[in-house]
Amino acid sequence: MTSTALLTDMYELTMVRAALHSGTASRHVLFELFPRRLPTGRGYGVVAGTGRMLEALRDFRFGDAEIDYLLKAQVADDALAEFLSGFRFGGDMVGYPEGELYFGGSPLLQVEGSFAEVVVLETALLSIYNHDSAIASAASRMTMAAEGRPILEFGARRTHEESAVAAARAAYIAGFGATSDLEAGRRFGLPVSGTAAHAFVMLFDTEEEAFKAQLDWLGEDTTLLVDTYDVEQAIRTAVRLTDGKLGGVRIDSGDLSTEVRQVRAQLDALGATQTRIIVTNDLDEYQIAALRAAPVDGFGVGTALVTGSGHPTCGFVYKMVAKASSDEPGAPMHAVAKKSANKNTIGGRKFALRRIDERGIAQAEVIGVDLAPRADSNDRSLLTDLVKGGQIVGDEPIQVARERHERVRAELPMNGRHLANAEPAIPTLILDEAGRPTDNVYQVGPAPTNL
Amino acid sequence: MTSTALLTDMYELTMVRAALHSGTASRHVLFELFPRRLPTGRGYGVVAGTGRMLEALRDFRFGDAEIDYLLKAQVADDALAEFLSGFRFGGDMVGYPEGELYFGGSPLLQVEGSFAEVVVLETALLSIYNHDSAIASAASRMTMAAEGRPILEFGARRTHEESAVAAARAAYIAGFGATSDLEAGRRFGLPVSGTAAHAFVMLFDTEEEAFKAQLDWLGEDTTLLVDTYDVEQAIRTAVRLTDGKLGGVRIDSGDLSTEVRQVRAQLDALGATQTRIIVTNDLDEYQIAALRAAPVDGFGVGTALVTGSGHPTCGFVYKMVAKASSDEPGAPMHAVAKKSANKNTIGGRKFALRRIDERGIAQAEVIGVDLAPRADSNDRSLLTDLVKGGQIVGDEPIQVARERHERVRAELPMNGRHLANAEPAIPTLILDEAGRPTDNVYQVGPAPTNL
Repeated sequence: MTSTALLTDMYELTMVRAALHSGTASRHVLFELFPRRLPTGRGYGVVAGTGRMLEALRDFRFGDAEIDYLLKAQVADDALAEFLSGFRFGGDMVGYPEGELYFGGSPLLQVEGSFAEVVVLETALLSIYNHDSAIASAASRMTMAAEGRPILEFGARRTHEESAVAAARAAYIAGFGATSDLEAGRRFGLPVSGTAAHAFVMLFDTEEEAFKAQLDWLGEDTTLLVDTYDVEQAIRTAVRLTDGKLGGVRIDSGDLSTEVRQVRAQLDALGATQTRIIVTNDLDEYQIAALRAAPVDGFGVGTALVTGSGHPTCGFVYKMVAKASSDEPGAPMHAVAKKSANKNTIGGRKFALRRIDERGIAQAEVIGVDLAPRADSNDRSLLTDLVKGGQIVGDEPIQVARERHERVRAELPMNGRHLANAEPAIPTLILDEAGRPTDNVYQVGPAPTNL
Repeated sequence: MTSTALLTDMYELTMVRAALHSGTASRHVLFELFPRRLPTGRGYGVVAGTGRMLEALRDFRFGDAEIDYLLKAQVADDALAEFLSGFRFGGDMVGYPEGELYFGGSPLLQVEGSFAEVVVLETALLSIYNHDSAIASAASRMTMAAEGRPILEFGARRTHEESAVAAARAAYIAGFGATSDLEAGRRFGLPVSGTAAHAFVMLFDTEEEAFKAQLDWLGEDTTLLVDTYDVEQAIRTAVRLTDGKLGGVRIDSGDLSTEVRQVRAQLDALGATQTRIIVTNDLDEYQIAALRAAPVDGFGVGTALVTGSGHPTCGFVYKMVAKASSDEPGAPMHAVAKKSANKNTIGGRKFALRRIDERGIAQAEVIGVDLAPRADSNDRSLLTDLVKGGQIVGDEPIQVARERHERVRAELPMNGRHLANAEPAIPTLILDEAGRPTDNVYQVGPAPTNL
């Protein structure tokens, strides 16, 4: 077990240090992690990171190595070092479950406890949610575009090696079928996939020898990469070597829409009617959608997935929204908000539900402030217990998150399925104290670039 | 020590498995890691990841836990498991040193050894170089735009928690002054920085109390965040509390160009002429350049840095360019290349130098194929030994890479300093066997989107 405690911005500890000395470190507070808005052009976002966050929380301890560093770097003084050496998060977390959708203003995670224990988690929480949700959001658009055809995740080489592991997990939640990343397979129990690269074909004196070697040791059901030299010739060889029983061919170059039809026609003409065609040439959700009419049996996606397909981060922020009126235990909480230009926050504890109509279609994200909105029979409450008094209670198998995502995405109205220049699929309604919708401050006006 | 061996795509192991059985696993090969081209609009790229790659190589071992997983997941059979359990890279690596610039076709890393040992590293090498060089390339544009004013790296919260650590390192190589990320501080010995967030100000009943607490425990030289409520009021308070000796103020919102001038005027009028102004509102290289005329003393950069400022990955590929003519030890090597549509490679071992004129200005990236280009007195050879016979020989302190970057960037011609819509600052010349320049296949024509 490696400590996650230094995956933290220095200012979190500087704040705790000053708060400890001034006696405010134990003030009871509530922070919320949320997006001010969806990225431009996106109809919805997908929550991911919850499971990884709970894992990181378990390992968020300052051991001797961490404390030594902080003292040596003069980040900590003795009082802070003493506080940190005993640190364990003892507060509460409530949040959206993994795989759920989100919209502008959705209160994805609420963290409650003493100021010191809540603020010190800021960077780690934001890193995990901002990354994993960006990947899941892109992945969901791709699986939606594929309309049931399988997508494999092949992006490890295009991103940081540990991001790659987390990206494979997020993509699986959003419906990807497997990953090429072995560490993701081991760590999260994901299905893994992969056969051969061009280099394998080039290693042999002829393409036929390379195909033979792969077929001998991986069986006829393997997928042969057919575009190292000449596609038509490669397919003739591959079909001949397998008597037409080849599992699949992979095409990684060229104009896929044309190429795939030619390959299908050639395979069928040679009697290899069951041979699958997998394509992998720098695909994104738009290219996947453009191949809807082409005889593609599966997609491999790399760069576009691991870079969030144009939106590599979600812009989630983590803000104090309520604090106790004094340092006394049990002092009442009241709303707080900052007012700086373009970056105001809405103070107070949020409650959230998705309004679902009688046909099962989502109508709105309804956010109550300091008051739970009234739920009709179809509505779904969105906040679930994750941590209670420092105990993790929100663990769940990744399969549950994957199934949840498929289920809740099916509730999107038709306009939530647009890929290009999408508007938010449903509005976010912020209710006032009397439960009436106010102006939706999180979705009005053009999206500013500052977070 | 955690093993890095599973940060690998499954197909690398599938290829080794088939190669072991067919007797080609020990064939001597040369792979090269290189960009086909620079990202559109970029004048140069910056090599980073070399140091992290050497570290990962040290830990690239398949222990019992890794082997067990591979057998259970049926990725490995017994022969592969036996090969992997004794695996240690025993070949050679030659490459561009860290901090060096690169251009389309630059042979950043050459890996030579048996097919099995060279191919199995593919994913880990690409992940590290593609990520770290993307960050360093963006960072270098920012430090160039800042013209000597310090930039701090504050991006941890916007990217995967481990990417953040690597990003801080890459940014430091490209001239950033410090990072907020404590783990990066510990792991790589980087300077760390950070004071307080809006939540700290909001924790107290008044802004004045918050400022007092911070000043009491961090001293007058600290930086106060002045835009939680009203900037003008905050500055009056801050200057009064420190008798004008405040170290700095940080502004994190609003139209910075206007805001900063007003703040400077107010500080000066109040006698706080030495107080520094730090700005941190979602900056990128363009905004930094736009603030050249404003009285800014330092920049904090987050999102744009850790997402590569529009180019989150470099598109480096790893291709076999030569192989031995037989499996006999000492068999001669010959060039190999794939010919698939739009994705051809140039076979043969590359040699690289930067042509520098008598004024010290870079003129071209000169690449010889199977032949070292003739170097004039000012020219710099670009390939250095990193690993010899499995022994790491290319380790160097990060400070050396940082100084190298500053030095070699200064050689760029004037047109290499464009930020917007830049063309490659110098051409890449690929020489033929006789040492004459050929058509530069890596930079001609529009940049295709496939990698």
